[in-house]
Amino acid sequence: MSELRKDLISKKWIITGTQSEKEFFEALNLKTKQEVGECFFCEGNEAQTLPEIYSIRKYDTRPNMPGWQVRVVPSKSAVFKIEGEMGKVGHGIYDLMNNIGAHELIVESPQHIKNICELSIEQILLVFKIYQTRIRDLNNDERLKYVLIFKNQRPKSIFRYGHTHSQLAALPLTPKAIKDELLSARDYFDYKERCLFCDIIRQEQRDKKRIIEENPDYIAFVPFATKVPFEITIMPKNHNADYCSENESSLRNFAQIMKVSLCKIASVLNDPPLNYILHTIPYLRPRQGYWKTIRDDYHWHIEIYPQISEITGFEWGSGFHIQPLLPEICAKILREAK
Amino acid sequence: MSELRKDLISKKWIITGTQSEKEFFEALNLKTKQEVGECFFCEGNEAQTLPEIYSIRKYDTRPNMPGWQVRVVPSKSAVFKIEGEMGKVGHGIYDLMNNIGAHELIVESPQHIKNICELSIEQILLVFKIYQTRIRDLNNDERLKYVLIFKNQRPKSIFRYGHTHSQLAALPLTPKAIKDELLSARDYFDYKERCLFCDIIRQEQRDKKRIIEENPDYIAFVPFATKVPFEITIMPKNHNADYCSENESSLRNFAQIMKVSLCKIASVLNDPPLNYILHTIPYLRPRQGYWKTIRDDYHWHIEIYPQISEITGFEWGSGFHIQPLLPEICAKILREAK
Repeated sequence: MSELRKDLISKKWIITGTQSEKEFFEALNLKTKQEVGECFFCEGNEAQTLPEIYSIRKYDTRPNMPGWQVRVVPSKSAVFKIEGEMGKVGHGIYDLMNNIGAHELIVESPQHIKNICELSIEQILLVFKIYQTRIRDLNNDERLKYVLIFKNQRPKSIFRYGHTHSQLAALPLTPKAIKDELLSARDYFDYKERCLFCDIIRQEQRDKKRIIEENPDYIAFVPFATKVPFEITIMPKNHNADYCSENESSLRNFAQIMKVSLCKIASVLNDPPLNYILHTIPYLRPRQGYWKTIRDDYHWHIEIYPQISEITGFEWGSGFHIQPLLPEICAKILREAK
Repeated sequence: MSELRKDLISKKWIITGTQSEKEFFEALNLKTKQEVGECFFCEGNEAQTLPEIYSIRKYDTRPNMPGWQVRVVPSKSAVFKIEGEMGKVGHGIYDLMNNIGAHELIVESPQHIKNICELSIEQILLVFKIYQTRIRDLNNDERLKYVLIFKNQRPKSIFRYGHTHSQLAALPLTPKAIKDELLSARDYFDYKERCLFCDIIRQEQRDKKRIIEENPDYIAFVPFATKVPFEITIMPKNHNADYCSENESSLRNFAQIMKVSLCKIASVLNDPPLNYILHTIPYLRPRQGYWKTIRDDYHWHIEIYPQISEITGFEWGSGFHIQPLLPEICAKILREAK
């Protein structure tokens, strides 16, 4: 029943029809109630999830049993489905397609921990390696064009799913915001013959006012024009378009800087809900000659959005954001935080 | 201190620096507290706002005194300022400019009414005429490029500003989401030699499944690909790019269909917070030859976004929206609502 539809005016794809009328209104009412019950992400409750897709576990333990360190399971309320045909069709002037894809949950700890920054660097490293493993594995499905990896962190959620986890959505298209970035990066490279993101890193290092943390491989900073207060972007300092090509030593430094950045947000803003989104290159399919210069143009990075202000329809209806606190002040506060 | 900054990656402008660190954290903490006090928008409390810019009032009453029907005042927490120079400058690779512009509040009723749909059609008509008056008046300031008119309606707000009002932001630039629309519309016209929006109206009239209400001049429907549940778009049925060129008879029909649409949302969703945003053409300045075909390509409209689901950083970080309930179901529920 669910499908992907394109808005002709904004050129954005959306997914719809994932819930029936009854499910939708039940979920709406549930929001205000406390959901009681055991956490199905905790070790020992493996039977409460769908069978695992992948895990890192002790060599003598079996799938779907205790003994794992990180575990990947399909989402029960899967927004995308791996079976079926692409079914790209038009309806009059409109475009739609079936919601082919994958929706997976990456459970980041066997313990009921609610903020990824409380995990050890070695544990976070395992999570970041699994991101690579899953992106590489899904590359075998030629129908897929992009893998979005993101986190909705709700440390204070009374719901069971406060348990720290990331989500993976493998899509049959590249989302508009990512495509806009790829095009921006290409335009900039065409004009300057330099990577836009490398130039941003150099500018931040010159200005020094928005940097929060640096290590040999990564830089964490508050962008010059942020959408929300205390937004952080982390980029590899060496030019690299593809998250999957980072080696273990680099990923360990990525885990270190993520841990520090997320701990600082938790400390300054009293452990707020937040999102992070990994921005890397799309799968390079034969029909995407369009992106043939992408490894020169683009530069992978991660964007972290604390949710402390209300995001209104106005903001994405207009594409115009009001972020009251100067990025330099946000950066100073984060830099000085423990 | 506040300024407009451009994000080089997304090409979006944002405004920042409107609050000091102290003001920001005070406002953050205030959110959870009840703000007591008289409503400064109510008749009789005129002295509590800044001096009025414009009003419709009884002929024998003086400005800033009782006797008005609709009243326009500058925002006290003005995000934009009308004084000063444009000051477009670069900072290294970054672009910024002063926050030249206007931020006005249109108080829609002398009574403490919280939802515009409770006003009479004649009163709503006055509000919509004032939108035109203000857009025309601000056109005299050559520095301004676009006027965004929008509403953040909070019928259940415990804050004083629950009192029904709209906001006007006159900007020295055209916001990215509007620019994207203008470009989409131009591409479509170049390709088909027809207006995209006129084609959408014809498609909706053929499908019939997403229409909520029609009158001689306007159509209200749930778009084919909505960002949020129960989103409504209203368009004039006759091609017209410019909101300001609608005559009084047409605006009365616009007031009628807005009242019905907003009442239906209030009825179905228990009077939720919502936003609406008017999308019309930018000011056509000498340097904007860019938009010379705009009166053929574009079609003004209004978008209404009820706020019942959480909008996360994920959604505009990725540009990918998940709207669980099929637009056809939303439309059916709204159509049948009283």
